Amino acid sequence: MAWKGISDAVIRRLPVYLRVLEEVKGKESCISSHELGKRAGVRPALVRKDLAWFGEFGKQGVGYDVEFLQDELRKILNLDEPLHMALVGVGSLGHALARYNWRRFQIDPLFTIKLVALFDVNPGLVGGYVDDIPIYSVSEIPRIVPEEDIRLAIITVPADAAQETCKALVEAGVKAILNFAPVTLDVPKDVQVANADLSLELQRLAYYIGAEQL
Amino acid sequence: MAWKGISDAVIRRLPVYLRVLEEVKGKESCISSHELGKRAGVRPALVRKDLAWFGEFGKQGVGYDVEFLQDELRKILNLDEPLHMALVGVGSLGHALARYNWRRFQIDPLFTIKLVALFDVNPGLVGGYVDDIPIYSVSEIPRIVPEEDIRLAIITVPADAAQETCKALVEAGVKAILNFAPVTLDVPKDVQVANADLSLELQRLAYYIGAEQL
Repeated sequence: MAWKGISDAVIRRLPVYLRVLEEVKGKESCISSHELGKRAGVRPALVRKDLAWFGEFGKQGVGYDVEFLQDELRKILNLDEPLHMALVGVGSLGHALARYNWRRFQIDPLFTIKLVALFDVNPGLVGGYVDDIPIYSVSEIPRIVPEEDIRLAIITVPADAAQETCKALVEAGVKAILNFAPVTLDVPKDVQVANADLSLELQRLAYYIGAEQL
Repeated sequence: MAWKGISDAVIRRLPVYLRVLEEVKGKESCISSHELGKRAGVRPALVRKDLAWFGEFGKQGVGYDVEFLQDELRKILNLDEPLHMALVGVGSLGHALARYNWRRFQIDPLFTIKLVALFDVNPGLVGGYVDDIPIYSVSEIPRIVPEEDIRLAIITVPADAAQETCKALVEAGVKAILNFAPVTLDVPKDVQVANADLSLELQRLAYYIGAEQL
């Protein structure tokens, strides 16, 4: 499911709400925007505004039905059915993320994103596995991505190989990329890139360290 | 340096501009908001608006002086002098991030954030090193953090240990945290947390995969 013209700032908060709902599920059947906001670190008014974009989920004075809102958010985020993902670049970070992600998938029933294929250029790695996930040659991207219906990919290749990797993934049908390489990727309008470059996040955080000087 | 009331969306783009400037440095002495925006994936008008928050950096019809703007952005982001960082949780992800970050520090002269200490609960790791960075016991956080003037930290511990780890870091003087644990951390107002939880980013990206259905 997708909705036109909704700010990414809103979309960014939905998975956080989803996680809070998972935390309270079983303990509470209903949750107020105040409680949901408190646990998500978002103002209650903003919680109500965010959710109002997608429909009337809450009841005045009662709050939100936890399981119902959880189901709705999963539909909105396309997490109501399994979504296949690939990871390109099985270096130390890629290897760790592959294992991390696999563990998440095992322990979190809500996490329907499944890592199904790894790609690398190193002949010593190709043909091997990380926790049952096969490692293919990057030259196999055009064949494996459509075959496995892969729509989402993580890029953990060196900076100088990132754009070329991105191009191959997009041409093979990938629609969203989580990029750990320290470069700005050039993609078509219908492809979404999230920059997970560690140095960018840390440099942004550094700004706030100065805040105490005010 | 810090500025009140500037949206995090603006701050989030500054490191991207900084990276673009590093890319063009040496090749061009001046850069237009159009070129800077194109390379950063941001509309030129927004580039001008973002930078205008901090001063008059550009010249009408000429653009921005690359080295000058680079220096100014580094000051704004507190990257004009070394900033000490710690990482807590030397598991597979923590280990990979420690090595990743260290490499970044080696190759990127602009990257003044230095990882100086690692912490873990595993006695088998404590006393060891990752690329010359010492691994201390988490019980040492109250001593090492002030001693090493650590202001920034990465959390890669399991979910159930994240809040306790966060509390120890904040009490020891850490002002900004990059959190990879899949929990929402509770911190004082003067502490900034960036959620680098992989599953949150992937769930957000999943939303955009549905966009093609429009």
